[in-house]
Amino acid sequence: MKVGDTQYRTIWLADDRWAVEIIDQTKLPHEFVIARLETMEQARVAIKDMWVRGAPLIGAAAAYGMALAMRSDPSDKNLSVSYKKLVSTRPTAVNLRWSLDDMRNVLIQLPPELREEAAYRRAAEICEEDVEICSAIGEHGFKLIEDLWNEKSRSETINILTHCNAGWLATVDWGTALAPIYKAHDAGIPVHVWADETRPRNQGASLTAWELGQHGVKHTIIVDNAGGHLMQHGLVDLCITGTDRTTYTGDVCNKVGTYLKALAAHDNGVPFYVGLPSPTIDWTASEGIRDIPIEQRDAAEVTNMTGRTDDGSVTNIRLTPEHSIAANYAFDVTPRRLVTGLITERGISEASETGLKRLFPEKG
Amino acid sequence: MKVGDTQYRTIWLADDRWAVEIIDQTKLPHEFVIARLETMEQARVAIKDMWVRGAPLIGAAAAYGMALAMRSDPSDKNLSVSYKKLVSTRPTAVNLRWSLDDMRNVLIQLPPELREEAAYRRAAEICEEDVEICSAIGEHGFKLIEDLWNEKSRSETINILTHCNAGWLATVDWGTALAPIYKAHDAGIPVHVWADETRPRNQGASLTAWELGQHGVKHTIIVDNAGGHLMQHGLVDLCITGTDRTTYTGDVCNKVGTYLKALAAHDNGVPFYVGLPSPTIDWTASEGIRDIPIEQRDAAEVTNMTGRTDDGSVTNIRLTPEHSIAANYAFDVTPRRLVTGLITERGISEASETGLKRLFPEKG
Repeated sequence: MKVGDTQYRTIWLADDRWAVEIIDQTKLPHEFVIARLETMEQARVAIKDMWVRGAPLIGAAAAYGMALAMRSDPSDKNLSVSYKKLVSTRPTAVNLRWSLDDMRNVLIQLPPELREEAAYRRAAEICEEDVEICSAIGEHGFKLIEDLWNEKSRSETINILTHCNAGWLATVDWGTALAPIYKAHDAGIPVHVWADETRPRNQGASLTAWELGQHGVKHTIIVDNAGGHLMQHGLVDLCITGTDRTTYTGDVCNKVGTYLKALAAHDNGVPFYVGLPSPTIDWTASEGIRDIPIEQRDAAEVTNMTGRTDDGSVTNIRLTPEHSIAANYAFDVTPRRLVTGLITERGISEASETGLKRLFPEKG
Repeated sequence: MKVGDTQYRTIWLADDRWAVEIIDQTKLPHEFVIARLETMEQARVAIKDMWVRGAPLIGAAAAYGMALAMRSDPSDKNLSVSYKKLVSTRPTAVNLRWSLDDMRNVLIQLPPELREEAAYRRAAEICEEDVEICSAIGEHGFKLIEDLWNEKSRSETINILTHCNAGWLATVDWGTALAPIYKAHDAGIPVHVWADETRPRNQGASLTAWELGQHGVKHTIIVDNAGGHLMQHGLVDLCITGTDRTTYTGDVCNKVGTYLKALAAHDNGVPFYVGLPSPTIDWTASEGIRDIPIEQRDAAEVTNMTGRTDDGSVTNIRLTPEHSIAANYAFDVTPRRLVTGLITERGISEASETGLKRLFPEKG
């Protein structure tokens, strides 16, 4: 998607065709910085420290991390060590394991001397597949928005609330939750996005607002507390979020606070959809609240915040009293009963085992 | 309550017995600053700019603002002008109007030369009444906590979630939501408070955490998004919040985001109580979502944040992209069906007209 007038993806090969370049998302929205990854270790840190984030992009970055690993040492031992190091960076997003399992399955069958080339090729395919998946999610979700617009006689703006960032910055391109919004915007449907700030780490206020702004989509930043009030007053037509892991039964794990928005949507009759690429489905987990591990991150993400001062410098400040502790649960689980539908690359499914297995019969 | 080893209230007369002193709450938790108010205009700014905040404290500060007005000019005209200026500072909290109506009713019946003394006397009474009310709310709420502790065989910590700040800093002393917690703590019941950060303005992370810490009550700061997850996992025994205005039918208007916590409490069978001093009841409003005006504040409260840098200075930073706009709804309404009970100074009531009129038959 667009940054200024230039088309970007979130991850690509450098001009030398072996190093990997990414947008360092920890610097947004204040600085647009491209980082160069030359080793598996650098890829590991980039995932762990959230230079790249979003379930699909984590999967893509891990795949390229494995390619970098094979470039330096294509042995069985390094394949195994690199897998373990990369898979342990983030516990919740299932794409990470999916992508690394895929890479390992491809590579383990090859003699070491063929692994580097195969790893780069497969990583590139994973990225292309992600772009296709997200574009297809965009098409299916577009129809939902178009239907709402038709219901409003094509005369009113469609107000869509989203939580966290599930835009193109969370994927290789297009995004999951935001793909339908970009497609609607590009087709001339007037859309306006309520972007939840999304504490902690503020992915909504920093990333979602930034990418929507760069692409010219109207949006308003609100605190995470405000969505319920907006829905009570008819100011939200539709909610769409992404997901870091969804059980095959339809329970949606996503950035913490998603559950609260789903409750408010349910209480006010607002449709609540989730953009769900199939690699994000966990075909082994049946009960989200019980089965999905919830990452706990550094309390400093709660107690401190980074932003730009009047003089233009980027500074970190502490918000809380010196001796107060903080807890930082990064995700929560929205039970399937609160989810109107799952927008996958194969179409929209109800949030249930029956619905998902109808779209993905090969998993049945 | 305690600040370090010293007992404080939030508002008091200076040693000269005419100027009014307050804690400037915009400086907390980083600095403990006492501000001196010498004019009605200074009191007006202190309320409007939230040096003092919290429905009961706003009422007390407005009463003293009227006393300062009468000191400089006790004419009918100044009484009327000062009333209008003070009442327009904040639209949502009903205590402001209640307190100013009370002051005007007392003063208008007196000749101008008696008004100054009467105004100071009545303002002091309003403060004393607030302390008594909050202490009584604390006693009634204490029993709830004690009952929960007994159910846990007096062996486990009671985990209480609160939103925003309805502690002693929001009142003259004791607080509303936190009064039961202070009483339980002082009686030796092990309590632990989950303090919602409470965006925007972060009253939880700055004020609630600070006052609990000063008084030695265990607490953990969480983002506003986290409460649902905690309740899903059995980590919250009880929610207690304050309120800025409650309809006589039991709809609770409070800091934005309260509604989302009430939804989560309801969804997980967690009792949801509201500390409600009777001056906060609006005996004219029957439908909260329809009837209560919701204050919209400066978008800068959403886009920017203030905190302390490593070098100790207090700095304001911008969090959001330069060209993104933000909206700032300050309150929301929790429908009575989600409220387990209202803890008033006369006892605990169900959130209904019947319940409230049983406790306050003089309003029937």
